[in-house]
Amino acid sequence: MREVVLSTGGSILLYDTSGPYTDENLRTDVRAGLPKLRAPWTAERAARAGDGAPTQLGYARRGEITTEMEFIALREGVSAQTVREEVAAGRAVIPANVNHPEIEPMVIGEAFLVKVNANIGNSAVSSSIEHEVEKMVWATRWGADTIMDLSTGKDIHQTREWILRNSPVPVGTVPIYQALEKVGGRPEDLTWEVYRDTVIEQCEQGVDYMTVHAGVRADYVPLTARRKTGIVSRGGSILAAWCMAHRRENFLYERFGELTEILRAYDVTYSLGDGLRPGSIYDANDRAQLAELETLGELGRLARDMDVQVMIEGPGHVPMHKIKENVALQKRLCDDAPFYTLGPLTTDIAPGYDHITSAIGAAMIGWYGTAMLCYVTPKEHLGLPDLEDVKQGMIAYKIAAHAADLAKGHPGAQAWDDALSDARFEFRWEDQFNLALDPATARAYHDETLPAAPAKQAHFCSMCGPHFCSMKITHEIRSRHGEDAEPVAV
Amino acid sequence: MREVVLSTGGSILLYDTSGPYTDENLRTDVRAGLPKLRAPWTAERAARAGDGAPTQLGYARRGEITTEMEFIALREGVSAQTVREEVAAGRAVIPANVNHPEIEPMVIGEAFLVKVNANIGNSAVSSSIEHEVEKMVWATRWGADTIMDLSTGKDIHQTREWILRNSPVPVGTVPIYQALEKVGGRPEDLTWEVYRDTVIEQCEQGVDYMTVHAGVRADYVPLTARRKTGIVSRGGSILAAWCMAHRRENFLYERFGELTEILRAYDVTYSLGDGLRPGSIYDANDRAQLAELETLGELGRLARDMDVQVMIEGPGHVPMHKIKENVALQKRLCDDAPFYTLGPLTTDIAPGYDHITSAIGAAMIGWYGTAMLCYVTPKEHLGLPDLEDVKQGMIAYKIAAHAADLAKGHPGAQAWDDALSDARFEFRWEDQFNLALDPATARAYHDETLPAAPAKQAHFCSMCGPHFCSMKITHEIRSRHGEDAEPVAV
Ligand code: SF4
Ligand code: SF4
Repeated sequence: MREVVLSTGGSILLYDTSGPYTDENLRTDVRAGLPKLRAPWTAERAARAGDGAPTQLGYARRGEITTEMEFIALREGVSAQTVREEVAAGRAVIPANVNHPEIEPMVIGEAFLVKVNANIGNSAVSSSIEHEVEKMVWATRWGADTIMDLSTGKDIHQTREWILRNSPVPVGTVPIYQALEKVGGRPEDLTWEVYRDTVIEQCEQGVDYMTVHAGVRADYVPLTARRKTGIVSRGGSILAAWCMAHRRENFLYERFGELTEILRAYDVTYSLGDGLRPGSIYDANDRAQLAELETLGELGRLARDMDVQVMIEGPGHVPMHKIKENVALQKRLCDDAPFYTLGPLTTDIAPGYDHITSAIGAAMIGWYGTAMLCYVTPKEHLGLPDLEDVKQGMIAYKIAAHAADLAKGHPGAQAWDDALSDARFEFRWEDQFNLALDPATARAYHDETLPAAPAKQAHFCSMCGPHFCSMKITHEIRSRHGEDAEPVAV
Repeated sequence: MREVVLSTGGSILLYDTSGPYTDENLRTDVRAGLPKLRAPWTAERAARAGDGAPTQLGYARRGEITTEMEFIALREGVSAQTVREEVAAGRAVIPANVNHPEIEPMVIGEAFLVKVNANIGNSAVSSSIEHEVEKMVWATRWGADTIMDLSTGKDIHQTREWILRNSPVPVGTVPIYQALEKVGGRPEDLTWEVYRDTVIEQCEQGVDYMTVHAGVRADYVPLTARRKTGIVSRGGSILAAWCMAHRRENFLYERFGELTEILRAYDVTYSLGDGLRPGSIYDANDRAQLAELETLGELGRLARDMDVQVMIEGPGHVPMHKIKENVALQKRLCDDAPFYTLGPLTTDIAPGYDHITSAIGAAMIGWYGTAMLCYVTPKEHLGLPDLEDVKQGMIAYKIAAHAADLAKGHPGAQAWDDALSDARFEFRWEDQFNLALDPATARAYHDETLPAAPAKQAHFCSMCGPHFCSMKITHEIRSRHGEDAEPVAV
């Protein structure tokens, strides 16, 4: 939690994801990594249960509240019992690999605050390890609840190691990317063995959740033939290429049970990937997408039966009037497992501004029940995001997530808005800036026209000017006629 | 209309608001103003009917299709009869002062494309006449369907004159601002006579629609006493101050009939102002707001009975779950008169990014039936917008309006998305940029990592890189296995 101290003497606590990085008294050594907060908790459980220690879902089902659940209950302002119940029901997940002790545990589920994931990771064309670690810290500073390392270039193992050891938030990956690198980038050369070894390697490192495109069944690939934009998920297209090359069923679907046993051993959470998500308004909610969604529901049940936690990934590009239907189908077909969506973008016409086209869809889908929103940056469709893009994407998505929390009536969500509105109405400019999602930008915008110190006490700003400041006039009315002026006889 | 020529040889026509300014063959002289497109149309009607020529609503009601309606039908891709019917029913308005011949006529109503208004105008603190004209041209270049001149400083008459003579889109004002300047900025010194003369002065100049806060009845002012942010409309606060100072009913409410006669003579459209709109999430849909809305409905009926066109203004700050209710109430209380809303902002926590907090609400309220969206810039609550802010506000709102058109199923809206998605899937990068809402920014973002010319033909970008471009892999699957590969036997 982060405390914002106000000029009135009061203060407000806000949920914070930045871990020790924003703590002024704590210096972190990137080579040493963060302190291992969870190490004693997992050690204690391992001492009791040995190698077969249950997953968070396992504990939840047998009625036991873990330390992670208690930590989460404090952060969310709910009871630990509620956390346990939601996890036990499969409606929420706690992505927390036993080998990732550095994280501050968090929960993803409709009953809790809407979360935001930030994708980082280099591509073959650009970026470096140090830069990706910097992006991770930067993303959590702006409120990323989890980050996904989507690196595909060289040094993929090393990049991930640095990110994991320094990340205060859960880290997700898409193991098929590294597996593909191992077979020289040729999808047809992928094998279950290469994939399995990659998953084990990543589980050992401490990856908290993994996107697995096991729902891209061979039969569904032809359903994408008449789409405007075909298959737009990297993992989805790789597995479709494998299925078509071998004329065989997706090996991830066939080996799902074995894979689930591996994930269970580390308490890694599934993020069942939507390899056939729509990549354009035209393709939204089509047969390919919905056929895969049904399979994801089936796989989710299998995984939960083995005590492995499951999220379901969703689109993509969806016009506003089809968003609610998509969420309703996901709930029904996937037994209320947490939905984790990319946007969705509500129109295709604004490359360069897809953080906005998609923040609209993200806010709505969050309100309808999506538990975590994967951010989209202004560079979507155009290139690899840089630090400024990460910030712009995060802010658009924190807005969407908070707007959804308000609309869902999440207890406590509105306290933040109320504190800011009070500061605004009372012309406490510094409080207004400090309560803003991005204090520096709010302050800079104000100061562009009125930089002098007295303007920070002024009962107006340059937008309406001193004679037309409606809030100033309201105060004058109240001071002259009293707060509760009786209705006027007319 | 603007034609975007594609590299395939085809082209697509997009609705355009920029008038002659984006026509390379036409030079405009700012001192001379734009060509007077509508002058012969109004002259011909005046010749037939004399000074008592009907308004657009008058003509529509007697079954006559005006040249403006024909022009609009072409732009909107509907029949002129539809335009006439919607106007006759009071569900749409054509803001077109007989003294503003420079505009390209447009319509505002739920049955048509969702429109966007850009507020410009200096305040006492900043800006100049030339700069405001430049902002107007700039706003229409980015798609503003109307602009409002909210100037409050000196040179208010002259600024408006320059804007009107050079604006290809309808211009709205809030006459109370100038009236207040005339009485030295003291609300209590306002009189009906000063206000009336100001309205006549502006009608003579050619203002197309006017915000009139006649719904701020004296009895409603005390209803705002327990709000978080009081009265946040400048006009609303001025009239509330007048009512309280004189312990009398709002003179605009009392003189509404006289005022309507003036507007009728010039065919000026009412924009009945929501002086008591909520300025915070906490205040949304409260008694003060809804009491005023009921009065706006009553005044709207009076105006239409006198053949004067009417829009109804709406908020403001509204959390997502209260937006639909607000629209439903407006429709019921105001007989489906076009709704014209500011945003709404869906959270208060992001000053500096209120173009995004409000684009979310704007897209939704547009889908639910709002006819015109008043943009919000990143400077909202903080200062007067500059050119870059105007652009950012406009783009966020064109996104919201188009997303709403898609969700409403407006015929033809999706053709734009489809054209862009086709270009994207076929790696026609230049077409993708040219079809984008902001081509220069899309191109620049792409070129940041891949500036070389061959990258404009490349079957990938730096986001996923050449080995992981899902669209490239989709093409490879299709070329190897055929577009309509039969389902695989598994
Ligand atoms: S001048 Fe306008 S924007 Fe600025 S504080 Fe006053 S009411 Fe708010
Ligand atoms: S590399 Fe990725 S973002 Fe770029 S064109 Fe290919 S699929 Fe689209």
